Amino acid sequence: MQVRVLDTTLRDGEQTPGVSLTPEEKLRIALKLDSLGVDIIEAGSAITSEGEREGIRMITSEGLNAEICSFARAVQDDIDAAISCDVDSVHLVVPTSDLHLQHKLRKTEEEVLEQAVQCTEYAAEHGLTVELSAEDSTRSRMEFLRRIFTEGIQAGADRICACDTVGMLTPERSYEFYGELSGLGAPLSIHCHNDFGLAVANSLAGLRAGASEVHVTINGIGERAGNAALEEVVVALYSLYDVKTNINIEMLYETSRMVARMTGVYLQPNKAIVGENAFAHESGIHADGVLKKAETYEPITPELVGHRRRFVMGKHIGKHALRKRLDELGLKVSDEKLMEIFRRVKALGDMGKCVTDVDLQAITEDVLGLMEDKVVDLEEVTIVSGNRVTPTASVKLKVDGNEVLEAGTGVGPVDAAIVAIKKSLADFADITLEEYHVDAITGGTDALIDVIIKLRRGDRIISARSTQPDIIMASVEAFLSGVNRLLAYED
Amino acid sequence: MQVRVLDTTLRDGEQTPGVSLTPEEKLRIALKLDSLGVDIIEAGSAITSEGEREGIRMITSEGLNAEICSFARAVQDDIDAAISCDVDSVHLVVPTSDLHLQHKLRKTEEEVLEQAVQCTEYAAEHGLTVELSAEDSTRSRMEFLRRIFTEGIQAGADRICACDTVGMLTPERSYEFYGELSGLGAPLSIHCHNDFGLAVANSLAGLRAGASEVHVTINGIGERAGNAALEEVVVALYSLYDVKTNINIEMLYETSRMVARMTGVYLQPNKAIVGENAFAHESGIHADGVLKKAETYEPITPELVGHRRRFVMGKHIGKHALRKRLDELGLKVSDEKLMEIFRRVKALGDMGKCVTDVDLQAITEDVLGLMEDKVVDLEEVTIVSGNRVTPTASVKLKVDGNEVLEAGTGVGPVDAAIVAIKKSLADFADITLEEYHVDAITGGTDALIDVIIKLRRGDRIISARSTQPDIIMASVEAFLSGVNRLLAYED
Repeated sequence: MQVRVLDTTLRDGEQTPGVSLTPEEKLRIALKLDSLGVDIIEAGSAITSEGEREGIRMITSEGLNAEICSFARAVQDDIDAAISCDVDSVHLVVPTSDLHLQHKLRKTEEEVLEQAVQCTEYAAEHGLTVELSAEDSTRSRMEFLRRIFTEGIQAGADRICACDTVGMLTPERSYEFYGELSGLGAPLSIHCHNDFGLAVANSLAGLRAGASEVHVTINGIGERAGNAALEEVVVALYSLYDVKTNINIEMLYETSRMVARMTGVYLQPNKAIVGENAFAHESGIHADGVLKKAETYEPITPELVGHRRRFVMGKHIGKHALRKRLDELGLKVSDEKLMEIFRRVKALGDMGKCVTDVDLQAITEDVLGLMEDKVVDLEEVTIVSGNRVTPTASVKLKVDGNEVLEAGTGVGPVDAAIVAIKKSLADFADITLEEYHVDAITGGTDALIDVIIKLRRGDRIISARSTQPDIIMASVEAFLSGVNRLLAYED
Repeated sequence: MQVRVLDTTLRDGEQTPGVSLTPEEKLRIALKLDSLGVDIIEAGSAITSEGEREGIRMITSEGLNAEICSFARAVQDDIDAAISCDVDSVHLVVPTSDLHLQHKLRKTEEEVLEQAVQCTEYAAEHGLTVELSAEDSTRSRMEFLRRIFTEGIQAGADRICACDTVGMLTPERSYEFYGELSGLGAPLSIHCHNDFGLAVANSLAGLRAGASEVHVTINGIGERAGNAALEEVVVALYSLYDVKTNINIEMLYETSRMVARMTGVYLQPNKAIVGENAFAHESGIHADGVLKKAETYEPITPELVGHRRRFVMGKHIGKHALRKRLDELGLKVSDEKLMEIFRRVKALGDMGKCVTDVDLQAITEDVLGLMEDKVVDLEEVTIVSGNRVTPTASVKLKVDGNEVLEAGTGVGPVDAAIVAIKKSLADFADITLEEYHVDAITGGTDALIDVIIKLRRGDRIISARSTQPDIIMASVEAFLSGVNRLLAYED
């Protein structure tokens, strides 16, 4: 058995409240979905706007392997808009429940049936592949559903789809429901929503019942609680049901990250398959088990989906995992020092702090006595800024005993200060700023600001952090603390 | 039928990589879980650390309605630690799969069985309720599982639990698996992990098969992809299966928010039941349907779980929902102006921008011509800061035609500038800063910084935003733009 995948990240996914994509962004995601191996890309709803049509046209003109599809209501304007974008197919959606007919459309079953048949014929006559789809099908009369699909297939529909629009199926009901709709003479598709957290399970049940195509989105994005997540459905089919798809599973993590970045819908860390913690281990028992044999606490390898394993420090950490992480960070310690670091990590955990690599490096360097002599000391920093002044900073440092005074300008006061510091150190050591990060600030203008900086010297990269209410001082201190730690290593 | 809920947010949930709670935070969450109606609170693993024991003791000394439980391995030290915290019960966990026995414990089935029986007896003799739990049970030999549970019950176990430690069940297998373990002579519990996105469906299937207790966490947090989410299991039982629990469903949203805040594990917006988008509607079709009758696109009302409905602007918005949102924001517009606003919102959407309330207010005010005369103009702002200087700002404003000059100091340069502006306006209008937010900054020190400010004047609250590489100028401009918009309304 092989299941076909229709990805609707660019249609249902883009309807996620707050998400909007430019035509260029749509194209980039479509190219990614095509190389991921998606069978059908629902690229949007052509009637929506001129920008939407531009995006769909950019995708259809690429000659991708995937079938390119537009959403359309059973309205001629919608189908004409789809045709104007040169798509291969339409996902032609008609509401079928009494609730939708009476309250939303104010139409009878007969009227909707006629619309569906006419629009199917119209689309088929214009050379489109037609997937005729029933909206809110799981609250519709089964008799009417079977009738609209049967007449739709006679009118030229190539595939049929039943949508669980508000996610009310259970796996048992899904098995029964899709079972009753398979064998009507055209391949059956499943379209599940996640309002009760059951979209993936319901999709899998429908596929067991005889459906052969599944509608999904990357990261499960979509209206409300979203759609069935592509990565969860596909990996469950692969690992738990031994059912094939055309998806290149090892591209799942990178695709997920790309969609998160472009839509701005970031995942919770415990998202299955692709979340940042999906293969992360903290507790002593778990991390210890994974180090001995990964299968003890991992159902699949992270590499299978292009992800990676992480060990995270915290109060549940065990000594084995701590040693492993220190090795990875290039920090060699004796057993005695390890116990001291272990004790401090647990204490930090009990204070409610999560222990990042930055903290672990700082603790270790402190325990090893690496930081006793600071090479660079801050004597003075002064900045001036405003709407009629170029942001300007002067910095006086003591570098290895010598006083160095420099000034710099920048796009803002923080930038000016860092420019001045970099100039002061230019003759002394070749250190580059790899990354500058400030956590979101919420509260008032006097809130604490958390600055994290990554610095590189040769092959060594180090992170440093400072937390203060003054963003300039936090940035300067994080930078200098990183510099001192880089200089403490004798290379 | 009634299902008992064991919440393990404070144990499995706290093992989420990166999460650590102080004893006080654990207590606050336990109090919330108790009023939520959880039957059993797994408060932690007493052996972990001194802080962990302190947290558990604080909880047991509160005399809550819920049974308070500690995790324990089948080791006397673990049980003694639990006893020292005065818990009601232990969740006594023994690995049962060959994989765990051979690679993690290096013990035989007979050795583990003996440990389990001895520890059950020991805990029961010390007055503890014992829930004997099999780790990695779904990869264990059924014969051994049934034997360890049967002998455990003879030794005094009050309940038994089978853990799907790496989340490998499917709903069908779960139904079969838990079916084989029910009827052994003690109530059966389910403990599912979410590695394939199936934890909730598998839990529901196990309950159908005869289990009477379910292990869950708020927001589904936990190691890797986490555990079954309390809110999803409980609401699915309530709405789809008509099965009761003791959970006060209308507290689910507030409990979810509290746990997210205290653990720092924020939810993706499309999280079922409690995500920010769970009851949000953007697309024209959906929002229009919900306005006519909410059930068209909502399986349950948001009020049922203490959540709220939101309409979000974007390129899929319809005119009905736009009019509704403008009404909510207190903005009255003619049909003609509405069309102009509608056009601009769609255009912004096509540019890939999501349209926030801030943007909608700005567009509307622009279309209505509210902003033609700015009451407050910035003439000059200058700030000085550094490690030996108190952050100081001077501000020259033109307020209603008059020049006002003020200076202020603060904890940092932004704070100083805002203090000076507030002083300049103090005699003119009573405006307070309700919220100051800066999005996370990533990249370099010259990255664009997005400042959003909420201001209040009387009953009116307004948001304003500015994006620039200089955090001081972005803050000042956002503040003044908000002030001008507040002053543009004639009250």
